[in-house]
Amino acid sequence: MKVGGAPYRTIWPHPEREDVVQIIDQRQLPHRFVVEDIRSAEEMAMAIRDMHVRGAPLIGAAAAWALVLAARGSGDDWLARLRHAGDRLKGTRPTAVNLAWAVDRMLATAAACRSAGEAAGRLREEAQRVCDEDVAACAAIGRHGLPLIREISARKGGAPVNVLTHCNAGWLACVDHGTATAPVYAAHDAGLAVHVWVDETRPRNQGARLTAWEFGQHGVPHTLVADNAGGHLMQHGLVDLCLVGADRVTRRGDAANKIGTYLKALAAADNRVPFYVALPASSIDWSLRDGVREIPIESRAEEEVRLVEGVDVAGELRRVTICPANTRAANYGFDVAPARLITGLLTERGLCAATEEGLLALFPERRAG
Amino acid sequence: MKVGGAPYRTIWPHPEREDVVQIIDQRQLPHRFVVEDIRSAEEMAMAIRDMHVRGAPLIGAAAAWALVLAARGSGDDWLARLRHAGDRLKGTRPTAVNLAWAVDRMLATAAACRSAGEAAGRLREEAQRVCDEDVAACAAIGRHGLPLIREISARKGGAPVNVLTHCNAGWLACVDHGTATAPVYAAHDAGLAVHVWVDETRPRNQGARLTAWEFGQHGVPHTLVADNAGGHLMQHGLVDLCLVGADRVTRRGDAANKIGTYLKALAAADNRVPFYVALPASSIDWSLRDGVREIPIESRAEEEVRLVEGVDVAGELRRVTICPANTRAANYGFDVAPARLITGLLTERGLCAATEEGLLALFPERRAG
Repeated sequence: MKVGGAPYRTIWPHPEREDVVQIIDQRQLPHRFVVEDIRSAEEMAMAIRDMHVRGAPLIGAAAAWALVLAARGSGDDWLARLRHAGDRLKGTRPTAVNLAWAVDRMLATAAACRSAGEAAGRLREEAQRVCDEDVAACAAIGRHGLPLIREISARKGGAPVNVLTHCNAGWLACVDHGTATAPVYAAHDAGLAVHVWVDETRPRNQGARLTAWEFGQHGVPHTLVADNAGGHLMQHGLVDLCLVGADRVTRRGDAANKIGTYLKALAAADNRVPFYVALPASSIDWSLRDGVREIPIESRAEEEVRLVEGVDVAGELRRVTICPANTRAANYGFDVAPARLITGLLTERGLCAATEEGLLALFPERRAG
Repeated sequence: MKVGGAPYRTIWPHPEREDVVQIIDQRQLPHRFVVEDIRSAEEMAMAIRDMHVRGAPLIGAAAAWALVLAARGSGDDWLARLRHAGDRLKGTRPTAVNLAWAVDRMLATAAACRSAGEAAGRLREEAQRVCDEDVAACAAIGRHGLPLIREISARKGGAPVNVLTHCNAGWLACVDHGTATAPVYAAHDAGLAVHVWVDETRPRNQGARLTAWEFGQHGVPHTLVADNAGGHLMQHGLVDLCLVGADRVTRRGDAANKIGTYLKALAAADNRVPFYVALPASSIDWSLRDGVREIPIESRAEEEVRLVEGVDVAGELRRVTICPANTRAANYGFDVAPARLITGLLTERGLCAATEEGLLALFPERRAG
């Protein structure tokens, strides 16, 4: 998507230097737009852990590029080195399944190579393929989601369709287009009137920082609200459709996503507002069924709750403490919306019910036996 | 309750000066403890509007003291002056019913007086009575709520009872004790192990700023969480009981409270966690039935969503902008938890079902005919 009029992805190989991968340092958005050079797998692991890059599809792509960097250099132990880097990368964030998926895919590619030199070339091609596939998947999610918005728009006689989204499942969370945002961009670009309620998404404020910035750059009308507001909006008919992303979806359709998603799913069900989860197939964990019991939920630093970052009147980035100096905090990163609260899952292969049968109808190759 | 070891209320007449009422300026908590002198009804109206004082019971008490200040001075038009001040006060905050209740009570007292001098004395007594009644009501709420916590404590063999609360329905929202916090203080003081999950309560962070401060001063174990976390906590059995306050409760038990309360009530119902609303009788609006349709919801300034206040590393109070410079925001102050989601209402007369019959059993004088 465009930044200041120029097209960008969230991650790309340096156009001239093979030892550098470039990313947008998302910690500095929306206040500053900074492109960061990454020179090693370890630097990328830290960029993932510290959330320079975030979003399930993007951290998969970042791990893939990290292994391209790890494959550089000589020595007989190149495959062991790659496996070690893969383990390190998998340990950076525990919830999203894309990380392990991308690492395993890259390691399988490497294992089929006979030399470090061959692996370096093949891994570079494979990382590019991971990215291109993600872009294609997100574009397909947008095409499959567009009819949902078009239908509501028609029913409302062309009045703006109000979408509520949580966190950032936008192009900044992917390589391009986004997952939950893809249908919104598709509708907006098709000339439909759309307006998005953007949840702030405490504690890291990805909605206020990233989703609002994305929509602002692209010209999609939107309004920032506190995470607390969604229930009231839905009680009063101000939301036509909820569209969120996912960090991991189980075989039967339970969806782990940014903490607070479950609360919005409850409000949507209580007010009969359709609630859709958009995701690429890489976010499906076919090995799990009960998301609430089985998906591990990351606990993050207390400081993310106790402090808020923003710019002061002079434009300086500052972090302020919002509670008493000695107050303890807990910081759960994700929650799980049970499948029963989800109207449908929107994937690159189309829309399906949030059930095992629904998913298997789109992904028949996953049927056992 | 105690502040730095000394007992305080949230509002009191100056011990030596009849033309001054003193309040705690809650905008500066938890970073600074500041007592503010209020010298006129207009100053008090601005202190209510700008939330130096907040919380339904406290703004009722503040309006009462404002009319004591308005009654000073001479002239034949004293009653008209009081009525004018009353109208002004009622217009400062639209949602809480206590404001109108206190103003009407004070104006009825004034109307029964024959002179400005008589009114000045009678109004002072009446304002003190409003405060003392609120303190007694909150203490009674604590007594009636204590058995709920005691029972869970016994069931858990004395392990800490985990309470979740939203916003600040603490002593800072009242004159003393608090509503939702009164049973917690009562349990803690009775030696029961209690731990409170304190919702941050965006956009104004009353939980992070005020509730965490209150519990910290009193020594009640507590943990600050983002508003988004409550659903996850309840899904995983980490909440035994939700206890919140109310700004207005309808005749059939629908409860308007700080925005986000409805989402927690949904999560409690979905996970069979008891959800209680604590309130003094002055917060009941007997004229309304359907809270979602009939209770007016205040819209506040966008800046409260766009900016967050806290202290920087140097201890300086600062406001930082958390979103792009041109992002618009919406700021709904309250939402309504329908009675069907509320396990019980906790009042100074005892505990009742959140139904018209339940309330009328406690307040039989409100039966029609």
